[in-house]
Amino acid sequence: MSMNTTTTGNLVSSSDVNGTEVFGNDGTKIGSIDHLMIDKPSGRIAYAVMGFGGFLGLGEEHHPVPWGKLRYDTQMGGFVTDITEQEVKGAPAATDNWFGNREWEQRAHDHYGANTYWL
Amino acid sequence: MSMNTTTTGNLVSSSDVNGTEVFGNDGTKIGSIDHLMIDKPSGRIAYAVMGFGGFLGLGEEHHPVPWGKLRYDTQMGGFVTDITEQEVKGAPAATDNWFGNREWEQRAHDHYGANTYWL
Repeated sequence: MSMNTTTTGNLVSSSDVNGTEVFGNDGTKIGSIDHLMIDKPSGRIAYAVMGFGGFLGLGEEHHPVPWGKLRYDTQMGGFVTDITEQEVKGAPAATDNWFGNREWEQRAHDHYGANTYWL
Repeated sequence: MSMNTTTTGNLVSSSDVNGTEVFGNDGTKIGSIDHLMIDKPSGRIAYAVMGFGGFLGLGEEHHPVPWGKLRYDTQMGGFVTDITEQEVKGAPAATDNWFGNREWEQRAHDHYGANTYWL
């Protein structure tokens, strides 16, 4: 029951998350968040669908990355991830209905070594 | 490690959450989600900022409601909440910088009887 009145500044509108930069562990920008995917039953954010904008030679494609792989870095003013070029290139291809296919989701989480959001 | 291949259909883009209807416990529509507020450090959704669109005589004002007060109902195809007219009307007024004021956030969560997202 803290009465701390300092501002937190940690909350951001879901609209404003889109476009936020994502950095690799070495501090270089690797892409940005295009939008988030939310799991309605749990109320949790499940994926950041990221645009890599030419990085990795991936063109403007969007790739879903498990949300747990990103953490916010206040000093960077953006999200940081330890995913690598090899991991993104080797990830299970996102079919049109990947977000409705639990088998694909399991493979993607296994691939990135991410905890699943549904357990 | 389920290999269940049934579609989940539970994921929704953060953009598409905006506008989703919110129903009261009795099934009547009470408002809709204008946008979500996300807590960057924890990666959790903290608030649904709801529009009540004339319901409760509240005009078009937007009111932040702790996200934990909403649950998704697959049969309704929308979110359901047990918050009442009295609770919304009696909630701490959302000042311009409510989302950066932990003291306000604590009072709002206390008011709605919601678990805080930051502990």
